[in-house]
Amino acid sequence: MSGIDSRLERVLAPVAEGVGRMRTVLERQIEESSGAVGDMTDHVGRFRGKQLRGALVLLAGDATGNATDEHPAIAAIVEMIHLATLVHDDVLDGASVRRRVACVNQRWDNQTAVLLGDFLYARAFALSTDLSSRLASRVLSETTRRICVSEIEQAARRYDFDLGEKAYEEISGGKTASLYSAACELGARYPGGRDEAGLLMRRFGWEIGLAFQIVDDCLDVVGDEAVVGKSVGNDVEDGKITLPVLRAYTLADERSRGLVRDVFTTPGIERRAARLRDVCDLSGGVEYAMARAGELVASACERLQALEPSPARDALAHLGAFVLERRW
Amino acid sequence: MSGIDSRLERVLAPVAEGVGRMRTVLERQIEESSGAVGDMTDHVGRFRGKQLRGALVLLAGDATGNATDEHPAIAAIVEMIHLATLVHDDVLDGASVRRRVACVNQRWDNQTAVLLGDFLYARAFALSTDLSSRLASRVLSETTRRICVSEIEQAARRYDFDLGEKAYEEISGGKTASLYSAACELGARYPGGRDEAGLLMRRFGWEIGLAFQIVDDCLDVVGDEAVVGKSVGNDVEDGKITLPVLRAYTLADERSRGLVRDVFTTPGIERRAARLRDVCDLSGGVEYAMARAGELVASACERLQALEPSPARDALAHLGAFVLERRW
Repeated sequence: MSGIDSRLERVLAPVAEGVGRMRTVLERQIEESSGAVGDMTDHVGRFRGKQLRGALVLLAGDATGNATDEHPAIAAIVEMIHLATLVHDDVLDGASVRRRVACVNQRWDNQTAVLLGDFLYARAFALSTDLSSRLASRVLSETTRRICVSEIEQAARRYDFDLGEKAYEEISGGKTASLYSAACELGARYPGGRDEAGLLMRRFGWEIGLAFQIVDDCLDVVGDEAVVGKSVGNDVEDGKITLPVLRAYTLADERSRGLVRDVFTTPGIERRAARLRDVCDLSGGVEYAMARAGELVASACERLQALEPSPARDALAHLGAFVLERRW
Repeated sequence: MSGIDSRLERVLAPVAEGVGRMRTVLERQIEESSGAVGDMTDHVGRFRGKQLRGALVLLAGDATGNATDEHPAIAAIVEMIHLATLVHDDVLDGASVRRRVACVNQRWDNQTAVLLGDFLYARAFALSTDLSSRLASRVLSETTRRICVSEIEQAARRYDFDLGEKAYEEISGGKTASLYSAACELGARYPGGRDEAGLLMRRFGWEIGLAFQIVDDCLDVVGDEAVVGKSVGNDVEDGKITLPVLRAYTLADERSRGLVRDVFTTPGIERRAARLRDVCDLSGGVEYAMARAGELVASACERLQALEPSPARDALAHLGAFVLERRW
């Protein structure tokens, strides 16, 4: 077992029982009377991901002394929302179908991916309405709205090198950190009240989630495809300006900036991420972005000092280190 | 004004004020701090549809003496869910992009349509969690789940001429009638209790909604494109076996059945719906399907007799007639 695998194991260990219950809820919710839906979910390999977001609900509950019997169900709902966003991310633009055909789910088409994602969202919301408190429905529907808005904003600002780091963090945070943040807040607050613990964990989750996204963005430009386990360079292909690229662009002189823009926008360029390394200081950009991720994790871990010592609190700190060390 | 326009006007007249309030809620909900989302929603012409589903919440409330201040908000939520399903229906399979490019939203790509639909779903659920009772969240998340499952089932049973009328009604009903049914039930029951009125209106909504879908399916095979206002023949292109086709197939002899299957499945055939008319008794199928729609509307209207006479009750009966007479 590699160091990073054992790190992940240490994160999940204190809530192993809750994670098991979360998975049971998840499987039962996804099982459907409809054979057609079952066929689809059986084949979505992503149903067995790291499930970090769900685990965060449980860890935040334990670390703040707020675990309830409903926490595993909330964790399952959070994972279902995450799965829905992943499934919808697979839907391709007509124009990019040919270029990226290898990434498309080979067995189902776009419309089916849309329907499966919608099914997961609906199932998640339906499950949340069965809980004793409405807090989860409220926080998670608002979070889902924010994820969508951030993804729409991100699409609208493709190729926009004037994005700025603040807007980058707002958009990337809204897209990714908001669900981490909601998971942590619900863990600490559900079924209600406990505003202080909720706010603390909400901020912790935001910082960890934003760091996670920044690391993801770095892996997309410099990661090893075999290790990352998915194709890299997708953001550049899609015209997304991520923090490492934004920083490299800022550091570049006028002529190199022109070349960077050309790499992003000239039709027919192959392997844009590799090209990018030739025309600007991409490793300098990655170094800067990783430092920012480190800063966010440090701030998040600092917040944990306000909590009583516990295995769950330690696991949350390990999670911070895991986010920075992971290579996939 | 044509007869059918004035029919629609008579349906909406008793709840004109509520419809106005519903539209205000709808506009406010769709307005978003995000400029990018606003740009998109501004251009979705469908935001000004017939809004029958929303009106049904209000009519069912009035007809059962159950109107509350929250009914217009529920009506707006129902319309938002309907809009989300329409926006997601526009997402095309890569393979069909070329063939149907004229139908695709010219300004945004598939991924954007997915995100806009997700935004509308999330906004709808978020709004429902602000209501005083959880009934709307529960009924509408379960209804959305059912819509998705039915659409997945429909996709799974393309080209399946052994579908049978019962399965057709379950799938078409789940896809369309379930939201009519939920709108009527919520109108009659919200904020809770009142099971008898709820059940009555739930059944009314199911029958009206299923009739609406059957008429839609008939218009798709025999409608006049200029009148229907959208391209016809889409179901045949997509391989969907609808009631008029199913009936025509059942009526046909073995040889004609083979020809019908060929029209559906031979690659490269143009104008499949027109071809279908040449190889089977499509008008006989349409006649049968329209008779079934008439039967459903008659049963729905019969149910209204249990309610006190009122302008809203009359409007619901007009709605039944409108569903059968509409040509678009």
